[in-house]
Amino acid sequence: MRVPKHIGIIPDGNRRWAVNVGLSKEKGYDYGLRPGLDMFRLCKEAGVQEITYYGFTTDNTKRPKEQTKAFTKACIKAVEMLSNEDASLLVVGNINSPKFPKELKHYTKRRKFGEGDIKVNFLVNYGWHWDLENLFSYSQGGRKSKANIMEHIYTSDISRVDLIIRWGGRRRLSGFLPVQSIYADFYVIDDLWPDFKPEHFHEALKWYDSQDITLGG
Amino acid sequence: MRVPKHIGIIPDGNRRWAVNVGLSKEKGYDYGLRPGLDMFRLCKEAGVQEITYYGFTTDNTKRPKEQTKAFTKACIKAVEMLSNEDASLLVVGNINSPKFPKELKHYTKRRKFGEGDIKVNFLVNYGWHWDLENLFSYSQGGRKSKANIMEHIYTSDISRVDLIIRWGGRRRLSGFLPVQSIYADFYVIDDLWPDFKPEHFHEALKWYDSQDITLGG
Repeated sequence: MRVPKHIGIIPDGNRRWAVNVGLSKEKGYDYGLRPGLDMFRLCKEAGVQEITYYGFTTDNTKRPKEQTKAFTKACIKAVEMLSNEDASLLVVGNINSPKFPKELKHYTKRRKFGEGDIKVNFLVNYGWHWDLENLFSYSQGGRKSKANIMEHIYTSDISRVDLIIRWGGRRRLSGFLPVQSIYADFYVIDDLWPDFKPEHFHEALKWYDSQDITLGG
Repeated sequence: MRVPKHIGIIPDGNRRWAVNVGLSKEKGYDYGLRPGLDMFRLCKEAGVQEITYYGFTTDNTKRPKEQTKAFTKACIKAVEMLSNEDASLLVVGNINSPKFPKELKHYTKRRKFGEGDIKVNFLVNYGWHWDLENLFSYSQGGRKSKANIMEHIYTSDISRVDLIIRWGGRRRLSGFLPVQSIYADFYVIDDLWPDFKPEHFHEALKWYDSQDITLGG
């Protein structure tokens, strides 16, 4: 079986899940923590080399305060949980903003935890526009540079994504790593993220195995 | 019905279609011309304001010569066909390369044909990397610029895409306008592009109407 080297995870549907079970929207995020850990372990077992979690974006921070507080707290908890696993962990996002939680600042340089054999990236206060803005600083004497874009975006330490799995039924990237996702295969699961089941992962891997890879060629 | 303002069209599957009907791969492209014109007319009728066709990419030009010749020829024909319609037409791609057909050079500034009431963009020798390279030239005295990325990529005359329709079953963007596609909803049709049917368009529009728009908020 052809296993993706790098999986991007868009864990959508926490708020819809909360409303469905009679909770207020912001209560949903905590129920996404366990799925995140389950996914990590499944990826590790399957031999995936890198995972990127879509934590929260600069766009998301425009939501009502009780929601932004709740998802920020859940992201902090998620990163702390992952730091108890064997992972080479990196938190990436715009740290020059009050929306970036100070608790996560010391994760913004990649660090090994335990065996550290799997790269785990966690996007926190990430923005696609912010990510690409870094390119503006690589002009070479006003002339157009032929520099490699992958190397000069803010998320240059995150590799090309092979497979993106999105929970919650929406078929869009919503700003997730536009450069690394150029050739990614995109698998959408209708179930909401807190309803995560290991079968979702297995289905996605099976589907991925049936795709060809052309990289545009 | 909520109609997308801007539809991106990824007309994939010409070569698979040709092989299925017993032709050699490069013969498939000509059978994609009629569907392209049908789509244009359907979009116009439905009140879509802008369409972008994924012609060919710089990646695609690495294919065998008989194929690159055939798809280049088909793109020239397609643009000529569209210039007989009421369209405000623009061909965009890397013109500083021998792969860019000279026949299309005079379409690289937007021009009105007929009533010109619908914007039609046709990507020819387009590359996502090429598109973003233009950002390197907007450094402001070595300091990071807060300039708007949409305004400084090579395809700045192409608006945000609302709905991308891809034929041929593959669930990936393959480098299609990464910046404009950030929030696009992505609809995949399993049929191959030469098997285009108006129902595909109607299904896609119906599906789009059932989606919410959050723009990440």
